[in-house]
Amino acid sequence: MALSLGELAAIVGGRIEGDAARLVERVSSLQASGPDAITYYRDPKLENLLAETHAAAVVLCSDDAPFFAGNRLIVSNPALAFAKIAAALHPRPAIQPGIHTTAVVHENAEIAVDAQIGPMAVVENGAQIGAGVVVGAQCYVGSGTEIGSGSRLDAQVTISHNCIVGCNCTISPGVVIGAAGFGYVPENSTWLAVPQLGRVVIGDDVEIGANTTIDRGALDDTIIGNGVKLDNQIQIAHNVQIGEHSILAGCVAVAGSAILGKRCRFGGRVSILGHLEITDDVEVTATSVVTRSLLVAGRYSSCVPVQDSRVWRKNAARIHNLNALAQRIKALEARLKQ
Amino acid sequence: MALSLGELAAIVGGRIEGDAARLVERVSSLQASGPDAITYYRDPKLENLLAETHAAAVVLCSDDAPFFAGNRLIVSNPALAFAKIAAALHPRPAIQPGIHTTAVVHENAEIAVDAQIGPMAVVENGAQIGAGVVVGAQCYVGSGTEIGSGSRLDAQVTISHNCIVGCNCTISPGVVIGAAGFGYVPENSTWLAVPQLGRVVIGDDVEIGANTTIDRGALDDTIIGNGVKLDNQIQIAHNVQIGEHSILAGCVAVAGSAILGKRCRFGGRVSILGHLEITDDVEVTATSVVTRSLLVAGRYSSCVPVQDSRVWRKNAARIHNLNALAQRIKALEARLKQ
Amino acid sequence: MALSLGELAAIVGGRIEGDAARLVERVSSLQASGPDAITYYRDPKLENLLAETHAAAVVLCSDDAPFFAGNRLIVSNPALAFAKIAAALHPRPAIQPGIHTTAVVHENAEIAVDAQIGPMAVVENGAQIGAGVVVGAQCYVGSGTEIGSGSRLDAQVTISHNCIVGCNCTISPGVVIGAAGFGYVPENSTWLAVPQLGRVVIGDDVEIGANTTIDRGALDDTIIGNGVKLDNQIQIAHNVQIGEHSILAGCVAVAGSAILGKRCRFGGRVSILGHLEITDDVEVTATSVVTRSLLVAGRYSSCVPVQDSRVWRKNAARIHNLNALAQRIKALEARLKQ
Repeated sequence: MALSLGELAAIVGGRIEGDAARLVERVSSLQASGPDAITYYRDPKLENLLAETHAAAVVLCSDDAPFFAGNRLIVSNPALAFAKIAAALHPRPAIQPGIHTTAVVHENAEIAVDAQIGPMAVVENGAQIGAGVVVGAQCYVGSGTEIGSGSRLDAQVTISHNCIVGCNCTISPGVVIGAAGFGYVPENSTWLAVPQLGRVVIGDDVEIGANTTIDRGALDDTIIGNGVKLDNQIQIAHNVQIGEHSILAGCVAVAGSAILGKRCRFGGRVSILGHLEITDDVEVTATSVVTRSLLVAGRYSSCVPVQDSRVWRKNAARIHNLNALAQRIKALEARLKQ
Repeated sequence: MALSLGELAAIVGGRIEGDAARLVERVSSLQASGPDAITYYRDPKLENLLAETHAAAVVLCSDDAPFFAGNRLIVSNPALAFAKIAAALHPRPAIQPGIHTTAVVHENAEIAVDAQIGPMAVVENGAQIGAGVVVGAQCYVGSGTEIGSGSRLDAQVTISHNCIVGCNCTISPGVVIGAAGFGYVPENSTWLAVPQLGRVVIGDDVEIGANTTIDRGALDDTIIGNGVKLDNQIQIAHNVQIGEHSILAGCVAVAGSAILGKRCRFGGRVSILGHLEITDDVEVTATSVVTRSLLVAGRYSSCVPVQDSRVWRKNAARIHNLNALAQRIKALEARLKQ
Repeated sequence: MALSLGELAAIVGGRIEGDAARLVERVSSLQASGPDAITYYRDPKLENLLAETHAAAVVLCSDDAPFFAGNRLIVSNPALAFAKIAAALHPRPAIQPGIHTTAVVHENAEIAVDAQIGPMAVVENGAQIGAGVVVGAQCYVGSGTEIGSGSRLDAQVTISHNCIVGCNCTISPGVVIGAAGFGYVPENSTWLAVPQLGRVVIGDDVEIGANTTIDRGALDDTIIGNGVKLDNQIQIAHNVQIGEHSILAGCVAVAGSAILGKRCRFGGRVSILGHLEITDDVEVTATSVVTRSLLVAGRYSSCVPVQDSRVWRKNAARIHNLNALAQRIKALEARLKQ
């Protein structure tokens, strides 16, 4: 798809300095640009690449306009504008409505006429597939599960029975939604499974990365709010609740019944223990561990960075004796006071 | 399914105070209860919910009986009794024996007459599927693999060749059993793969959560004991052995050739390094790292909880100099002694 | 397959002491050996097993030859030689060329005549499947994706559109290659997805473990170099680059745009933050966290091992006050100086 710089400026609310009629066909990085591409600039470290780029145009803010002599699309937020331009030039593939001949769709499933059910997909009894939904190749949609209009499941997604996915969601391959939560009670040195009878209820505009798992609730539901973004390999245990527009990076794990607020941000590999509450607008940096409720908005951390292994070994040994070290300091202070 | 309170009391070995003939149809939480539901109470924090519940009956212990005026099912262990009641009221869906017309089952696979093979499933040469087994939609069962009676595989489970799954196991979607272990030997700055020729051997009553992976052994087998419970996204490397009735929470990783005892409990995201031994009845709390053998039963930890990021940054920097700090303390002590 | 000790010695460049005509059929551990097996010895802790083994022959180095009276295959590197012997005695199953009748292959996909496309596999428009490639059961190969000759995909692998897999790669079940990277820009307290338009480009001789995920690049590509080995449940974010012959153990996570050098080694559960660079020949030990560029080859760590939970609790509390402790030491030093 080719669009003129003028059309793109209209889409993003920007202003052209240069040839507004110039057509571009794709977005690119500064490095991989060419006369058919529009790129963007905001990182001063890339200033030398900006000078050398062969792009048809560059998206940048007015302060940076002097650094580029070619066609400029001036905006207040280049990253945001560029994302919208990318979406305009590279729209998602159009839906191909219909049920593939190899799909197995139960006669009591309701499939919107303009939905697309891919090859080898299985849709069970009573499932409801909304308008414009894509159920990708080899997906599984359990009985009674509802998928809202405009949502797209990539290949090999599994959604178990009686779950709800909202509208305009995107679900990557290998995602498992609605598996049984991990609930056991001890009985005579063995573990008895507690039936997991709740659902997973996912709001609108949620995006879920590859191989992420979201377990169904034990009695009540696991709830993912509108606009939540989940990266790959995230584990969400039963009865977790995640507030609207929170964003979780790769490999985050949230234990059972934790309640996460709105607009929270969790870095990669953050661990959140169970039965605690995190208020709105909390940020937790990568690999940190939340062991208690966080009731005050702010930024929290507990990451220990690497150092040379020989030095680290000595420091790690000291950590194991840190309380004793502290007591020695106290003793020194007491002796000095005398 | 509706059962009377009297019938439920018989199932769990409890005693009814109230109307033993009252029928209930489902279990629920205190909050989501109703006149068709039985709920349970044991957490004093929920005492106000207990007073307000509309449940037909409440399961509780005799000490708590005075706090609820309605029908009571008195037991010594409410959580255990409630799990059994939930299973009685909400039995798993009955098996639908037979091989789906779309499944691809090798002519030399042995399928019990009352087993259920789902749509798009693939069962290879020499596989043995026991009585009452469910192989879910889009599952893969490799050649020579045996699945014991009563075991159920959810959708999209992969079990490679020559593995053994015991009886009455439950395996969630996305699980991969029997992939090649990660074994390489260096050769001229490259890595040569060591053929992985062992099996995965899984006992009875094992439950495995979504997207968990269990690699086959290199020469000998990877072994999962009877009654072991594995949560989601757990990684079990080649030649690991896990003793009976141990329980591993989400995202635990166990490196190669580690031997874990019986009745151990591992919290979420615990890491266990390879070639070590953990004795019976060890508990390791969430996110901790086991780097050496644990030969004494007990509870072990190494989790560093979050704190405010500005404070943490200073503390983390001190950790990198902790050995030097300790030496300064020693010097102070020596000077004071003089 | 049976081979004589003499044939095996020729394969590995070793020397037989004993009966070079003796046939063996399989490799085994010392414990599980028998008269049809060849085993190997290098770990002095297993010396008693060596004495008792029933193996037809043992692979060992000349220094250890005196410890075993039976047939010996003398080599300089027993582990390497044994890997080659295992591959010779246990070759991978031969390819069965052809497209399974249940596979769905687009008419514009190019499938080499000797490639094997398994049951329920889906191969989309414009995909190119090279000579001797195995696309396992229930795999998905997206449009325009190329798979080089000799590569093998186990069951249920997903490779999205326009990706490239080199020659002689091995990809385990549940792997997801080419899912959209995790890129969002904030807009009015919500998150706008940035279209992910790059590819995943994987070199030759790469091996990828079960349920590992490798995201496609945002604009440019995610790149995995020749000979890289990835264990299970690894997460590789968009625009990561991994240099040739690096090896990553289970559950490693690499955040976006990190650049990893050649011949690096990362232990299990290592976390690598985004937008940093790691030079060649770096080793990072298990569970450590890399938060900054590592520009000097060497060994790095930050793992905190477990200790008794009661002791740990006190030490962890001290970590949260470590900066204050250090300041108390400084104050003591100042007072003593006076």
